[in-house]
Amino acid sequence: MKSRKPLYMLLVFLGLPLVVGQLGGLATQSSVSGWYQTLEKSVLTPPPLVFPFAWTLLYLLMGLAAWLVWRAGGRAPLALWGLQLAVNLAWSFLFFGLRDPELGLANILLLLPLVAATALWFRRWSPIAFWLLLPYLAWTAFAAYLNLTIVLLN
Amino acid sequence: MKSRKPLYMLLVFLGLPLVVGQLGGLATQSSVSGWYQTLEKSVLTPPPLVFPFAWTLLYLLMGLAAWLVWRAGGRAPLALWGLQLAVNLAWSFLFFGLRDPELGLANILLLLPLVAATALWFRRWSPIAFWLLLPYLAWTAFAAYLNLTIVLLN
Repeated sequence: MKSRKPLYMLLVFLGLPLVVGQLGGLATQSSVSGWYQTLEKSVLTPPPLVFPFAWTLLYLLMGLAAWLVWRAGGRAPLALWGLQLAVNLAWSFLFFGLRDPELGLANILLLLPLVAATALWFRRWSPIAFWLLLPYLAWTAFAAYLNLTIVLLN
Repeated sequence: MKSRKPLYMLLVFLGLPLVVGQLGGLATQSSVSGWYQTLEKSVLTPPPLVFPFAWTLLYLLMGLAAWLVWRAGGRAPLALWGLQLAVNLAWSFLFFGLRDPELGLANILLLLPLVAATALWFRRWSPIAFWLLLPYLAWTAFAAYLNLTIVLLN
């Protein structure tokens, strides 16, 4: 290690999305075994167990990307990263907390360009950080499709 | 980055404990709102919400410690690290899955020296890795106390 500070910041950047994941999980728990099961869904919908694993990986990648940009000296793009993270968290509370798929869809349609813009801005600071956000962008697009089918089918 | 390989291994070492956390959470979910609430517990028992956040942080620290040792060239200590991680996962299935606090206690009493030995072995490769495992060791000791009181009071 050049110094301990990067290591400390790595924990901060990895920890923030994972805490968001835990908070989102709390909003999800009460609905996922009841209300969510009653919804008509796309045939492409993965089993519920897939989501916590997928999101844990995506949150790790997201945190690592932010840390790389931070380490490369990027500061302003991290504000956008924080914003997209807040919007990401809001989805769980809109879709599962309020049980409102339409608000959830509106939220994802806001999230998608925010994630894309974050990835593009990150690329100026760290090409790897850009690539680390692409699975997240792809999964968010997939989530938008799943959410849309729920709006249309119910 | 000197190369991309350390970054890839960072994801592996951070991901393994977090996946263990997700698997443990699956074993916990069905019991935490029912059976667990009926148990007599120590007055020092934190609210249930504390545990997922504490464990997420501890898993992050654990993964970071393992990565530092790996990066420093340590290989044999990582086998012990993997073993303690497997024993850690087993606790959720013994205590919550089988609803057997005595097996859970036996498991933690095995886990404690494994974590202590891992920390001490890690110190030879990375002093920071040693310190990163101390919160985990302290929390495991606290968990042993909580588990013991559940065995004694029920």
